[in-house]
Amino acid sequence: MKKFYLLTPGPTPVPHKVRQAEAQPIIHHRTKEYAEIFREVSEDLKTVFKTSNAVLTFAASGTGAMEGAVANTLSPGDRALVVKGGKFAERWAEICEAYGVEVVPIDIEWGDFVSPETIKEHLDRDPGIKEVFTTLCETSTGTLNPIKEIGEIIKNREGTLLTVDAISGLGACDIEVDKWNVDICVAGSQKGLMLPPGLAFASVSEKAWKFIDNSKLPQYYFDFKKAKKSLEKGQTPYTPAVSLTIALKNALDMIKEEGIGNVLNRHQKLADATRAAVKVLGLELLSKKPANAVTAVKVPEGIDGVELVDTLDKKYGIRVAGGQAHLKGKIFRIAHLGYMDRFDIITVIAGLEMTLSDLGYKVEIGKGVKAAEEILKDL
Amino acid sequence: MKKFYLLTPGPTPVPHKVRQAEAQPIIHHRTKEYAEIFREVSEDLKTVFKTSNAVLTFAASGTGAMEGAVANTLSPGDRALVVKGGKFAERWAEICEAYGVEVVPIDIEWGDFVSPETIKEHLDRDPGIKEVFTTLCETSTGTLNPIKEIGEIIKNREGTLLTVDAISGLGACDIEVDKWNVDICVAGSQKGLMLPPGLAFASVSEKAWKFIDNSKLPQYYFDFKKAKKSLEKGQTPYTPAVSLTIALKNALDMIKEEGIGNVLNRHQKLADATRAAVKVLGLELLSKKPANAVTAVKVPEGIDGVELVDTLDKKYGIRVAGGQAHLKGKIFRIAHLGYMDRFDIITVIAGLEMTLSDLGYKVEIGKGVKAAEEILKDL
Repeated sequence: MKKFYLLTPGPTPVPHKVRQAEAQPIIHHRTKEYAEIFREVSEDLKTVFKTSNAVLTFAASGTGAMEGAVANTLSPGDRALVVKGGKFAERWAEICEAYGVEVVPIDIEWGDFVSPETIKEHLDRDPGIKEVFTTLCETSTGTLNPIKEIGEIIKNREGTLLTVDAISGLGACDIEVDKWNVDICVAGSQKGLMLPPGLAFASVSEKAWKFIDNSKLPQYYFDFKKAKKSLEKGQTPYTPAVSLTIALKNALDMIKEEGIGNVLNRHQKLADATRAAVKVLGLELLSKKPANAVTAVKVPEGIDGVELVDTLDKKYGIRVAGGQAHLKGKIFRIAHLGYMDRFDIITVIAGLEMTLSDLGYKVEIGKGVKAAEEILKDL
Repeated sequence: MKKFYLLTPGPTPVPHKVRQAEAQPIIHHRTKEYAEIFREVSEDLKTVFKTSNAVLTFAASGTGAMEGAVANTLSPGDRALVVKGGKFAERWAEICEAYGVEVVPIDIEWGDFVSPETIKEHLDRDPGIKEVFTTLCETSTGTLNPIKEIGEIIKNREGTLLTVDAISGLGACDIEVDKWNVDICVAGSQKGLMLPPGLAFASVSEKAWKFIDNSKLPQYYFDFKKAKKSLEKGQTPYTPAVSLTIALKNALDMIKEEGIGNVLNRHQKLADATRAAVKVLGLELLSKKPANAVTAVKVPEGIDGVELVDTLDKKYGIRVAGGQAHLKGKIFRIAHLGYMDRFDIITVIAGLEMTLSDLGYKVEIGKGVKAAEEILKDL
């Protein structure tokens, strides 16, 4: 008998109660009943985003709302500053390019984070830059960007928006959308929100709505204005993903019950324990500023990273993520994200120790677990 | 005690087995296990679409794939012939306009269908029209368009595509995508496919791929080329709606077991019975060519259509759809679409008789049910 443990940075495990909610008989969306639920989740999302502005919901994965952020705010030929340094950061550049928006890139090494000073220099040099695109937690490297500090730089520049991909970060790494001056914050359902994939979210600031009024790029399904207008009636412009929205209500109820502060503290502890454990096993973190959603670990010399991830999966039933793009085989990524508690971390660290031992890496069995346990007993 | 009966043209009831499949613990999408399931559903969709070409799947509602059809095939300033005559037909025009595509409209009365001859005249007069957009079943009026005949007109015109919104039609009204020369056929999950909303589909012909190679409109999330390339590896470019895809596998298994021919015959009988029943009650159909997915019925003189729909819902637990736009209050729509059998029709007709009687319409109780039953006993 072998159970299955999912510790990837999306999809993340979905609580039983949320899955059961998803499986309820379908209801019609153009009803008072649905409108009440949708209004309630839209309000509760504001608490998670820490914003007083509307949070829009789309039936799509997070990338759809990222595309919406670009297509709703900019015009052909506009310039955008894009922080690179990871697979998802680079997606902002790809979307901008697809829409004829000129990308001014900030190239940073994968695993590094952007310096707010660099962003300031770019904006001082080129005040025509209309939008800065970056990532809260870069999933491919497990790296946190200093969103608060970037927000400080942008808040008084009337001509520039700050748009953040918080898809894997929201609910794990703190983000205070309003206080930190984030104009558009994009999220997805299958991460900290403990749902299956299929819903995308975007909060939109007052400043961003002014840009949206002047944008000339085409868009239809991800039309932010229409979505906001419909939301006022508890609706979406097009048929919503009803079962996922019902599930979202249940997931948000769980978050409310735990309290968003406690949710973030839990992620902090789970992340601390994971980092401490891999370090005492002699492994190195990839990231210069590790995020609380996912820990990227360098595969030690002489070990095949693909084999490590496969062994953990096939022999022990524990699924973590490998490296992407040029980091394939060179890192593995352990998520501590969403519906996870201390024993998920104990499990993955124990499995990692067994796997490293299988692959001939000199490991003291139990040492990582001990380090994690010492942190996790006070969760 | 009052049960709830959903007879709207989307969402439609989701079978228990399919809902339970949706509620299974989530699996990761970048795995062999998921790729096998996604490959299998993509193959099975071909049987439903009656095509040998790839059917692409998106995490979105059907409108997303409609937008994709426009944005992937056309360029700014192109001309498109759009058949109007209903809320969803008009959506094609809205999308084209959002993308700077010039719309040549064919205005027909709501409830009427397009004459293939009219399309021929337009194309003969203006051979520069690059795409014809129409609807298999217009949900807002319950009307079937003659797609086969339109396909005959377009098949030898190398410079023109035929793109059909079959969102509410697929699985209820026959469409033979390849034989009828349909270049792009769009569908959604929450209709004949018996799923919750949240998945959109598009089949794409060889001829359409050539247009896609030359298209200059921007798109990213609904990029057909990327979707096709990923599908070859059993994947999607962006995170798929995993739980809905697993549910889709189960729904398609049910369709395979019944056989697509039997599925279509069942819809024919359910539609025939519904039409016969409302007619013997003295009511009139809106549509000049009623579709097998949904029957639109004119509200009789002296009766308030909104009250009729509300009474059916609140007093009897039966939810049908009202009229949209200028038909609000003037028609009601009974769906016979997806996971429905003969007794769903008996139920709705019985409920309708009771409601009409409540509202003071002269009705012989049981007369409509008898007419339906006579057709349905031979289903």
